[in-house]
Amino acid sequence: MTDLLPNFVSGQWQSGKGAGTALYDPVLGTELVRVDAHGLDLAAAFAFARHQGGRALRSLSYAQRAAMLGAAAKVLQANRDAYYDISIANSGTVKNDTAVDVDGGIYTLGTYAKMGEGLGNVHYMLDGQPARLAKDPLFQSQHVLTPTRAVALFINAFNFPAWGLWEKAAPALLSGVPVIVKPATTTAWLTQRMVKDVVDAGIFPAGAISVICGTAAVIRSHRAVTHLSVRVNIEADSVNCALLLPSEAADGQAIDLLAKEVAREMTVKSGQKCTAIRRVLVPEKLYDTAAQAISARLAKTTLGNPRNDTVRMGAVVNREQFDAVHTGLSHLKAQAAVLHDGRSHALVDADAAIACCVGPTLLGTRDAAGSDAADRVHDTEVFGPVATLVPYRNDDLDHALQLIGRGQGSLVASVYGTDPAALARAATELASCHGRVHVVSPDVASMHTGHGNVMPQSLHGGPGRAGGGEELGGLRALNFYHRRAALQASTAVLTQLEQHP
Amino acid sequence: MTDLLPNFVSGQWQSGKGAGTALYDPVLGTELVRVDAHGLDLAAAFAFARHQGGRALRSLSYAQRAAMLGAAAKVLQANRDAYYDISIANSGTVKNDTAVDVDGGIYTLGTYAKMGEGLGNVHYMLDGQPARLAKDPLFQSQHVLTPTRAVALFINAFNFPAWGLWEKAAPALLSGVPVIVKPATTTAWLTQRMVKDVVDAGIFPAGAISVICGTAAVIRSHRAVTHLSVRVNIEADSVNCALLLPSEAADGQAIDLLAKEVAREMTVKSGQKCTAIRRVLVPEKLYDTAAQAISARLAKTTLGNPRNDTVRMGAVVNREQFDAVHTGLSHLKAQAAVLHDGRSHALVDADAAIACCVGPTLLGTRDAAGSDAADRVHDTEVFGPVATLVPYRNDDLDHALQLIGRGQGSLVASVYGTDPAALARAATELASCHGRVHVVSPDVASMHTGHGNVMPQSLHGGPGRAGGGEELGGLRALNFYHRRAALQASTAVLTQLEQHP
Repeated sequence: MTDLLPNFVSGQWQSGKGAGTALYDPVLGTELVRVDAHGLDLAAAFAFARHQGGRALRSLSYAQRAAMLGAAAKVLQANRDAYYDISIANSGTVKNDTAVDVDGGIYTLGTYAKMGEGLGNVHYMLDGQPARLAKDPLFQSQHVLTPTRAVALFINAFNFPAWGLWEKAAPALLSGVPVIVKPATTTAWLTQRMVKDVVDAGIFPAGAISVICGTAAVIRSHRAVTHLSVRVNIEADSVNCALLLPSEAADGQAIDLLAKEVAREMTVKSGQKCTAIRRVLVPEKLYDTAAQAISARLAKTTLGNPRNDTVRMGAVVNREQFDAVHTGLSHLKAQAAVLHDGRSHALVDADAAIACCVGPTLLGTRDAAGSDAADRVHDTEVFGPVATLVPYRNDDLDHALQLIGRGQGSLVASVYGTDPAALARAATELASCHGRVHVVSPDVASMHTGHGNVMPQSLHGGPGRAGGGEELGGLRALNFYHRRAALQASTAVLTQLEQHP
Repeated sequence: MTDLLPNFVSGQWQSGKGAGTALYDPVLGTELVRVDAHGLDLAAAFAFARHQGGRALRSLSYAQRAAMLGAAAKVLQANRDAYYDISIANSGTVKNDTAVDVDGGIYTLGTYAKMGEGLGNVHYMLDGQPARLAKDPLFQSQHVLTPTRAVALFINAFNFPAWGLWEKAAPALLSGVPVIVKPATTTAWLTQRMVKDVVDAGIFPAGAISVICGTAAVIRSHRAVTHLSVRVNIEADSVNCALLLPSEAADGQAIDLLAKEVAREMTVKSGQKCTAIRRVLVPEKLYDTAAQAISARLAKTTLGNPRNDTVRMGAVVNREQFDAVHTGLSHLKAQAAVLHDGRSHALVDADAAIACCVGPTLLGTRDAAGSDAADRVHDTEVFGPVATLVPYRNDDLDHALQLIGRGQGSLVASVYGTDPAALARAATELASCHGRVHVVSPDVASMHTGHGNVMPQSLHGGPGRAGGGEELGGLRALNFYHRRAALQASTAVLTQLEQHP
């Protein structure tokens, strides 16, 4: 039997009382470890985190908590090799893909450590300046943000076991709110190991961080979660797009930048990113040019065992996802042509009967009329290396925006073009139904941060179908973990408040 | 038959097809007007507001929309006498109480007109400064707030037919979001009349403002409302408190300020304010002093027909509320003594068999042990002129905070004391479970804005039981009506964005 990973709750490592659920290697098919959460006293675990953890964290200042985040980032950096080993085995990812998760998580943690330091040795935040409530400035209103007296529960997705933990935990812990993380079972190992390293290093006070590696059903049935009025932040599915502006030339720089970014987004983490490009909007006249440019790049992608250095794309996370990608592909193909077929990719160092590897596939809706007729491409998120080229009427940006709008809200859109004014106009139009708009112009070709990479400085989340949540965005992330209140008082009272640096 | 008030939807005045629901005078018992919304094409009404209204509003700048708010405030000011007549008849309120609603609404509208002017001739708002995404400042992230492409539906309570309309409509319209108001049936007349005056003046573009005077059931069953993922802001019930600090003397100024404010809050609008004081926390040793001071003020309250100038407190809004107040009183009395009995107040110029008048009643939980044992006082909001004195252990602020916390989140707490540092400390503690903390010290005795008055400059809303919503708070109110997005782009692109004044 493989090892059973213990959970960390109520300040203690505790193993589940059940047989456990096995975690597998998606390339080799071997069993790695087991997880279980049956028999845990969850009510006690939540109470411990909320009361011990919350009180201890709130007694510290923002700067003190920021220093803890910095110390945790150092511990993780020191143990980085172990995380790469776990990721290659449990997620089937090549090194570049592991970096997005592991190094991305450590970078985000470090960024909040740095930003938090600037908040100083205070215990709440002032929100704006005092506002007069009458002609006389003696009685005024000052808004303050105080840490929420609650516990943050993270029910995470399988695709970012490292980054998904820290991008959420960093703003919560910096705010003084204890966290309980429930990683997706399939890839829970890496999350559990990172929490273990930080717990072993004794950085945070007791109750500040807990990890439960059980099944989601165990958590969902818990009263604390089902209880009404709990603040919730959701990131749901999202059919993100890339948009080439109408005025770009077939031999121009913008179409090259688009093709490069689309091919990269399709293949990074085998397309298992909530931010990956799913729809590619180009003027009708550039459909063939774009199809060829993207396909040429996809054709170079070597697929197979991530332990082989020539391999650029590993596996999807498990057999269930492998099957789901193929089902989604069939669904889309009913309304789209195949422009680059993933089945043309031979597997390197892997057994096709066992390895959950999927070749990158580009589909297309042929012409503008085809785009108008197709509906599936706008509401189907195939969570793998799949995208669809969607041509819009030449010189008709409104048509492109209308097609994009059929996605009903997404996490991110990217825009490619050469005219700054036209790019700014398109970006502000796209802003109303996207949480992030990524603008790629030739002057930033070598330094832009990528359509799909979530930077801690920028908002992550999106309206409508994307769930309506907001994460990161620099210190904006702390708002979710604070309560806003207006203090109406004499100026003599307001001057007694803690002042920020 | 009394007049049937028409609804304003899809840019037209339309009467319901049903017999209508009658609105009454709560003092005289006479029927005033009828309202009905049966047979309206609500799907068309929502689509018209969202598309015509939304597009027209968004094509204007913040400054242009602010000018419209200013023009609307002027129209309302010119018709103020009519609103006072409707209020006295339909709400049974004395002039001072009508002012809180009518003049409060016009003041709030005017305040947003003024604040909006400062936002300038732009069509979206920049949120913070650009943040570098790499060492090179050539590629940066700029957050923007763009108007939500939606319609705002207000389902309002009966107690503020005027203010409840404008405090919500002003931030929405200023943001570029069309509004549909569904007033509470009981007092819908005043809301309908104010909308009519503004519509007749032709200030806003078609579809920007609609009013539906039907029953809530008609609205609630509409698909647009029951549909998932719609942004919702809720203000639920709230058991607000007033707190006298532990160190205050029996003959000091703070206890006088407390007694005055408690008596005022209990009687304004017959206690039918969501922000009214329901629990009064005082140190055990000052229980009797506080009880006498508050009771002495309540005893002076003349009760009856608001048309008589000697009357200080009119009726509650209808027979249903009258009965609910008495039921709530009985519920509380099981755990509290009667310190001032509302039944001791004779009615002036009104028939006790018809008029829905309730005398102000002060209850008390006797001693600190009694406060610990009582639970009903913390979760019962009697929506009338009723409050309960809750003594806490002498010199034990933590005990007071713990008792207040049993309210599970309220809209507002007020604190009374003389030491600025102690007041600031108590205020920041209270901030974690209140949307607003109102601090009364002797230096602002004559100019503070009152525990229950909602100022447009300050946040209105509260966590937990109070619903978790946020309204007003100056320009913070606009956030609800905007979508935040991060624009990641070349600095050359970001400099093309509209710049605020």
